[in-house]
Amino acid sequence: MPKTERWHWYVEEFFPTEQHHRAIDAVYYAGETAYQSIGIIETPVFGKMLILDGDTQSAQNDEKIYHEALVHPALAGTADRSEVLILGGGEGATLREVLRHPGVKRCTMVDIDGDVVELSKKYLPEWSAGAFTDPRARVVIGDALAFLANDTGRYGAIVSDLTEPLEDSPSNPLFSDEVFRNIKTRLREDGVYVLQASTAGFHNMSLHAKMARTLRGYYRHVASFYTHVPAFDNDWAFIACSDRLDLARIEEAAVDAYCAQLRGENFFYDAETHRRIFALPLYLRRELAKSGDTF
Amino acid sequence: MPKTERWHWYVEEFFPTEQHHRAIDAVYYAGETAYQSIGIIETPVFGKMLILDGDTQSAQNDEKIYHEALVHPALAGTADRSEVLILGGGEGATLREVLRHPGVKRCTMVDIDGDVVELSKKYLPEWSAGAFTDPRARVVIGDALAFLANDTGRYGAIVSDLTEPLEDSPSNPLFSDEVFRNIKTRLREDGVYVLQASTAGFHNMSLHAKMARTLRGYYRHVASFYTHVPAFDNDWAFIACSDRLDLARIEEAAVDAYCAQLRGENFFYDAETHRRIFALPLYLRRELAKSGDTF
Amino acid sequence: MPKTERWHWYVEEFFPTEQHHRAIDAVYYAGETAYQSIGIIETPVFGKMLILDGDTQSAQNDEKIYHEALVHPALAGTADRSEVLILGGGEGATLREVLRHPGVKRCTMVDIDGDVVELSKKYLPEWSAGAFTDPRARVVIGDALAFLANDTGRYGAIVSDLTEPLEDSPSNPLFSDEVFRNIKTRLREDGVYVLQASTAGFHNMSLHAKMARTLRGYYRHVASFYTHVPAFDNDWAFIACSDRLDLARIEEAAVDAYCAQLRGENFFYDAETHRRIFALPLYLRRELAKSGDTF
Amino acid sequence: MPKTERWHWYVEEFFPTEQHHRAIDAVYYAGETAYQSIGIIETPVFGKMLILDGDTQSAQNDEKIYHEALVHPALAGTADRSEVLILGGGEGATLREVLRHPGVKRCTMVDIDGDVVELSKKYLPEWSAGAFTDPRARVVIGDALAFLANDTGRYGAIVSDLTEPLEDSPSNPLFSDEVFRNIKTRLREDGVYVLQASTAGFHNMSLHAKMARTLRGYYRHVASFYTHVPAFDNDWAFIACSDRLDLARIEEAAVDAYCAQLRGENFFYDAETHRRIFALPLYLRRELAKSGDTF
Repeated sequence: MPKTERWHWYVEEFFPTEQHHRAIDAVYYAGETAYQSIGIIETPVFGKMLILDGDTQSAQNDEKIYHEALVHPALAGTADRSEVLILGGGEGATLREVLRHPGVKRCTMVDIDGDVVELSKKYLPEWSAGAFTDPRARVVIGDALAFLANDTGRYGAIVSDLTEPLEDSPSNPLFSDEVFRNIKTRLREDGVYVLQASTAGFHNMSLHAKMARTLRGYYRHVASFYTHVPAFDNDWAFIACSDRLDLARIEEAAVDAYCAQLRGENFFYDAETHRRIFALPLYLRRELAKSGDTF
Repeated sequence: MPKTERWHWYVEEFFPTEQHHRAIDAVYYAGETAYQSIGIIETPVFGKMLILDGDTQSAQNDEKIYHEALVHPALAGTADRSEVLILGGGEGATLREVLRHPGVKRCTMVDIDGDVVELSKKYLPEWSAGAFTDPRARVVIGDALAFLANDTGRYGAIVSDLTEPLEDSPSNPLFSDEVFRNIKTRLREDGVYVLQASTAGFHNMSLHAKMARTLRGYYRHVASFYTHVPAFDNDWAFIACSDRLDLARIEEAAVDAYCAQLRGENFFYDAETHRRIFALPLYLRRELAKSGDTF
Repeated sequence: MPKTERWHWYVEEFFPTEQHHRAIDAVYYAGETAYQSIGIIETPVFGKMLILDGDTQSAQNDEKIYHEALVHPALAGTADRSEVLILGGGEGATLREVLRHPGVKRCTMVDIDGDVVELSKKYLPEWSAGAFTDPRARVVIGDALAFLANDTGRYGAIVSDLTEPLEDSPSNPLFSDEVFRNIKTRLREDGVYVLQASTAGFHNMSLHAKMARTLRGYYRHVASFYTHVPAFDNDWAFIACSDRLDLARIEEAAVDAYCAQLRGENFFYDAETHRRIFALPLYLRRELAKSGDTF
Repeated sequence: MPKTERWHWYVEEFFPTEQHHRAIDAVYYAGETAYQSIGIIETPVFGKMLILDGDTQSAQNDEKIYHEALVHPALAGTADRSEVLILGGGEGATLREVLRHPGVKRCTMVDIDGDVVELSKKYLPEWSAGAFTDPRARVVIGDALAFLANDTGRYGAIVSDLTEPLEDSPSNPLFSDEVFRNIKTRLREDGVYVLQASTAGFHNMSLHAKMARTLRGYYRHVASFYTHVPAFDNDWAFIACSDRLDLARIEEAAVDAYCAQLRGENFFYDAETHRRIFALPLYLRRELAKSGDTF
């Protein structure tokens, strides 16, 4: 093997018949937490990557695509940004994006896996970019299920950044009627609940559609949106829920005004991007229109 | 290896450090034409796939995303659809989409590689779906460069479906001032020239930007648009050029009216999809706004 | 992917954590028989390869290492070569090696999978090299188990070329006391029973040792031998059983005399090679000396 | 990807069309020395592995096969073991094997890459097993070429454990007439010079044959021997050179007597193993008999 060839690779399995192989420049950490396996690596194209249970969670060079999409439509659409709740989001980048808006008085983040939070602080400081030490941040290491059952706060935005509800995932019990009801109770009536909501490719959109069908039982407006995230090699979907407004039809001027208030510059999101990600191709709208099972 | 495991794989290299591995169910053809290597395989997730020089050209289960995006915005935006010219497009799916509009009187397709055309007819009939025997189809096996230099026709739409101008590709000489000028000469003044135009990911958008910069020297309106194509594992970009109108700002009602005239149903494209694919994220607009080299 | 890169690969799994990837030049056949999946491919280093259930069975460029090792020590050591029985051996190369000795009057080969035999005749004629049409060859397509139960012949050599007795393999029921007793009944008292007998690497020699332990209950002399077969990426083991002589201690001159009678030239085997393959390294002799379970 | 699947792999390229993939349990070190890239990893089947420039150098679970084969035939065959010289051997396992014989008064080891030595001490202590602190060990970090040019010692055995003379390797200049002459000058007349000497598979034995042809110009007896090393996935060859005796014909009793003097137990080597590794198959003897180019 010539000196310039690569011997060190990360293999991600999407289906048993589909794998992505990425050369590794360095391994910063590889181990097991109480909840999942974790890898923190450096790659040539995507920079640092966080891997949980073998799946890419986010990558340095394009995590802003994911995190801006997750946070800003919801914050743009809520009537009151003073109190925000994040479920999951251990890397701290969701927290970072929320705290970029000066109207946020407090952001509570609940993640079950304290090791992911600490390892992200140590190895992935670009993700949180100081957010963990912002006085407005309240980080709770604990079970989101228990937190929601006992909490008494009311939030203008609830942002769910949990891993997918696959069988072995610690997120699996968090897709249930009890949790959805508790979330609605904690959300202000004029608030927005947004969640990362699986994939939206023509070949892997059924879990997303199931989530959307489920949430239509809880909210008047349930808007799917998605963007391709290169590090995920997938069209990644989200759902924004609100009783007050349909985020797919928000005024572009309102998005621009919201973005102008943010500290620092966006990489991905603005009014035109909003237009893009909430406009869905025919095949996805057809899938979303089908009836089927729910959580 | 248990009986259910896979021993047969297709490996596509995106960068020397990024590979995609797909299990193969069957190989229908593998060989060399006079111009390129060709593989026609069956895969579990994407169905049949056409591979040229190791790169995925299109896949049965999502080729409509690519081909509808390539053809329909241009046909929706031209003033006259009676004569259409396709450069490349050997599989026949671009021809199929063009001929779905009853206003097309003749569609001329020029592809240098007759073997790709014949093998596609034999092994990939779903791609052309009868288009090659449509009396409106005129298929020319030959060099697009020479065709453009000698042709005297005028076309309401010219659709360039050539492989990327990489060093070893037969398409390489087709990205030149001479070709761009010949294309403009063959295009009606109220026509649209559309081309597949490389990738638009944050990490591989520079070739696309170079193409767009180049074409701004030839047309008043040069609109980039893109969509993720799962089988390509890439955000695939196109450029629509016109002196008459900006396709990014076409009326949604006009798109709907156009689509209503098509024979058969679309899978991907309609007015909402048009809105999506022509709305670009911030980072891509910033890249397109940069100055830089041209072809 | 540059034109010279490879897109087409064969992946063989040795352990779930050990895989070998080989580029494929051509696929001659890929399908399922009634008993197993079968692939016949062309590779740059090993030439044509036969793959059953994902595992390499033999390769054009080094199959002689395997087949000469399987056949010639046994034929050199038997007292009477007139009647030989092969169990398995569908490709025909074991038959070819047996028939190279002019003293063989008849060689009966019993293989359950007629498709493997026919596909080998068609695509792998170098393996059998005419042996299937030799008038001394008797090919029985059928279950070796049933054949042994009903046959009345006596053989100077019985050569077992069955796939490994893994759970899903059609060979699994053939490693049983009933079969071992039937084989012994069919073997002349001065004959040799030889079988391919799994791997002999320091990390995968336990199945071989179990086979050897089992056979010591049936024969006075049970000699393990092995050779590395590059296409298998393994040290491949065999066991030669005899009540008459210990094949590990046969006279070198007797091997030379036997080889001199063979039609054509050997690639691998002669007296010095015999010395090599029957001399075992310390770790393997220690493993073989251990007590443990048997079939 | 289920939690039990592997995401972390080591890929070794043998030919551009042959790769071995091994899952990684841990990375202890990955970096660059002044001379080569180095990786120290943990794997499920082979334990710890040392990787230089992408190639496996040795693995915890079978390095004794390689190191016992490299050292003990030479020490068994020399007339005087008091002074031994090792060229290369940075991991310390060759030193360990030499020092197991109580007749060794001093063992000098010359390796150019002090980082490999230090990293091996730290991460691979099982390789040297205390040898670096044995008072008989003299470790010289420096260029073997310069050492041989200036040294005035005489050695009963010289053991060359250099990486292969590939184009980019630091070992490349060490396969030259000047070096071979210097080695002969430093070797006692009754001594043995042994070197690791590339691979001996039917498909990759030409470099070995070239080495053997070259050395026949310097010594009366030049004996090739080889063993399969599973972690190398190759038949690994060595050459033992002597003017006094042919190591392929040494008395088995002499080997047994030598082994009985060693401290601790062998894993691989004894008189029977010696018989195995010095007996060569037909195809290799034919290759060695050919004329051809030399270093």
